[in-house]
Amino acid sequence: MNYIDGGVCAPAGFQAAGVHCGIRSKNTEKKDLALIVSDRLCSAAAVYTTNKVKGAPIAVTKAHLENRKAQAVICNSGNANTCAPNGREIAEKTCQLTAEYTGIPAEDIIVCSTGVIGEPLSMEPFERGMGPLVQALSADGGTMAAEAIMTTDTVSKECAVEFELGGKTCHIGATAKGSGMINPNMATMLSFIATDAAVSPEMLQKALSEDIKDTYNQLSVDGDTSTNDTVAIMANGAAGNKEITEEGPEFETFCRALRMVTEVLTKKLARDGEGATKLIECQVKGAPDADAARILSKSVISSDLFKSAMFGEDANWGRVLCSLGYARADFDASDIQVEMGSGKGVIKVCEHSALYPHSEEEAAEILAEEEITIYVDLHQGKGEAKAWGCDLTYDYVKINGDYRS
Amino acid sequence: MNYIDGGVCAPAGFQAAGVHCGIRSKNTEKKDLALIVSDRLCSAAAVYTTNKVKGAPIAVTKAHLENRKAQAVICNSGNANTCAPNGREIAEKTCQLTAEYTGIPAEDIIVCSTGVIGEPLSMEPFERGMGPLVQALSADGGTMAAEAIMTTDTVSKECAVEFELGGKTCHIGATAKGSGMINPNMATMLSFIATDAAVSPEMLQKALSEDIKDTYNQLSVDGDTSTNDTVAIMANGAAGNKEITEEGPEFETFCRALRMVTEVLTKKLARDGEGATKLIECQVKGAPDADAARILSKSVISSDLFKSAMFGEDANWGRVLCSLGYARADFDASDIQVEMGSGKGVIKVCEHSALYPHSEEEAAEILAEEEITIYVDLHQGKGEAKAWGCDLTYDYVKINGDYRS
Repeated sequence: MNYIDGGVCAPAGFQAAGVHCGIRSKNTEKKDLALIVSDRLCSAAAVYTTNKVKGAPIAVTKAHLENRKAQAVICNSGNANTCAPNGREIAEKTCQLTAEYTGIPAEDIIVCSTGVIGEPLSMEPFERGMGPLVQALSADGGTMAAEAIMTTDTVSKECAVEFELGGKTCHIGATAKGSGMINPNMATMLSFIATDAAVSPEMLQKALSEDIKDTYNQLSVDGDTSTNDTVAIMANGAAGNKEITEEGPEFETFCRALRMVTEVLTKKLARDGEGATKLIECQVKGAPDADAARILSKSVISSDLFKSAMFGEDANWGRVLCSLGYARADFDASDIQVEMGSGKGVIKVCEHSALYPHSEEEAAEILAEEEITIYVDLHQGKGEAKAWGCDLTYDYVKINGDYRS
Repeated sequence: MNYIDGGVCAPAGFQAAGVHCGIRSKNTEKKDLALIVSDRLCSAAAVYTTNKVKGAPIAVTKAHLENRKAQAVICNSGNANTCAPNGREIAEKTCQLTAEYTGIPAEDIIVCSTGVIGEPLSMEPFERGMGPLVQALSADGGTMAAEAIMTTDTVSKECAVEFELGGKTCHIGATAKGSGMINPNMATMLSFIATDAAVSPEMLQKALSEDIKDTYNQLSVDGDTSTNDTVAIMANGAAGNKEITEEGPEFETFCRALRMVTEVLTKKLARDGEGATKLIECQVKGAPDADAARILSKSVISSDLFKSAMFGEDANWGRVLCSLGYARADFDASDIQVEMGSGKGVIKVCEHSALYPHSEEEAAEILAEEEITIYVDLHQGKGEAKAWGCDLTYDYVKINGDYRS
């Protein structure tokens, strides 16, 4: 099982493309329409935002995935199609238009939007762009698609792995965007995952739903859950393995491969958080159970006070303890150990929930790096989890406060 | 019922003082030790942080308030006495020292600390300062005490009201600090409330516990719940009214007077949030119930995205809908109206959960003011609540990230 180059087109039978169709009227260069297609119908699964205010495309995608099958993803950036007039109609028409040009039935198409909310979206740019988009489809098109779904992301994000199932070489490839603002109105996290492994829809949903608990759901840039978050996976079976229909060693292998991809993309999203200068990982162990560890690690990387301290490269362990203490998890706070690490080493700063004497110079040197890990040991159980975030910087405020000027 | 000048010494029978005793070694001017005393034993009640990591003084205060009686508050700033060696012993000795100088039994003393966590606190500055502190006690000393509990607060905060109970003139006066960092390690909210009304301990606790649901608990600067938050109230009965021992018109009058004080202090705390340039109030009505309205209004003023938009004076109603949508409250998000207002007027920006056409110039003019109110109507029930916060600014990041440089 190893990482390979590429993204959503790394698995056999997938093509992708991205074009500028004019949804972003002010920027005539930025690609704003992405298409990912499989050469055959796929098992499909998805997870969506828990926000009660939802983008219109989510309802359409949910309806299309009722039969747990899909063959394509169409996604625009620049407008979230949320709280906008005729949103559902626009999302449905987008699928119909995609169907006309690709021959894939509209009900087998996943539709997503990301961008500003509350602004009308018209069909006109889709009508102009769909022809060139379908024309551009290519097995090398993953990066084009990855670029087309970007909003305030500063880099496109892709990851792929190769692994074996029953002697057949399989692949999982994916792209993700977000944890930046959208045009700039709202942070939306989107990720599209493709695999040529044969996996039943039920097991695919199970794999995805379990996976995101420890990856995308453990990511926070600013704690704001978007109206449009969607993670979708399609499995087309082109690798020729015997379909995975139940738990067992092959399902475990598939889940491990999936985790390799989603964890890398989660880190890339955190590192590219708005205004971020550092990727912050918090590893919690010794928690009562995994759920508590997830909640506690995420509370640390979500704290504005802690995030500001990381920006200031200050080993402020008191803020780690504070954010653990107010997390919605049951645990005993009397024997907490905190270490902080980076490529420059690891330093213990707190033991038995109190100061552990350490060199401030050494701590500052460790925290000057761009990838920081906070290690927390609660000394009470076997629960472990990680969470990822970034520092809080002047630029976060600038991006989100000043964009009109 | 009306506002009067003053703070904790506005009620009859209370004296207060504040001195510099040297807990803040770097700043030899800033007062860092406060004392509030009543001339007789009081009914007393308190509420504390829900953080599992708690300052040592909280355990001591809880023990001293088991009999629901108190006669004095001793509070230092500059060191939180949290995760610090011998914390409980230091807090107990502080009460004993206060008892020696005032003649008030140690077990009738409320003790609080606010400041940096994880650093050792010694008795030495208390021993040096207690004599001058008790010497300085005065019925004009409320402001001294209010100044002595400040940490990164930029202004001291006091409020007082006068009202009648059964023909007797009564007063409630209070001070508060916080929603800024502590020296600078952690936002701690402290408020000490004094009244000369006679109220039984049970009804005093009931009044306080109900009141904070709609005042201090509806305040957020950065979402970080401190280890040391404490709100304490003492009622000494000097006004001569018949003691309030049950619900009824007099209890309601007392609660209304209390609310007048705590709501003003809540707003002062929000306005003085770290780096804040604006006070933001969110009023939610039409919610299924009051609890939902509280959660929803607080979610709006807690959103970093929304707070950044307020700093940018941008009528970004999409962020209001987004933060309502992810709040942990049950409600129907289909018919939300949002208006934004200030001294310059009120403008509707969202109706039926969609854009309501409006002038951006007019909105910008309204949001250029220093006190902004966001009016949300969910059109489904009678639940109403308010919450208070501030904008997120470069200075917040600076205060919390750069303090060592």
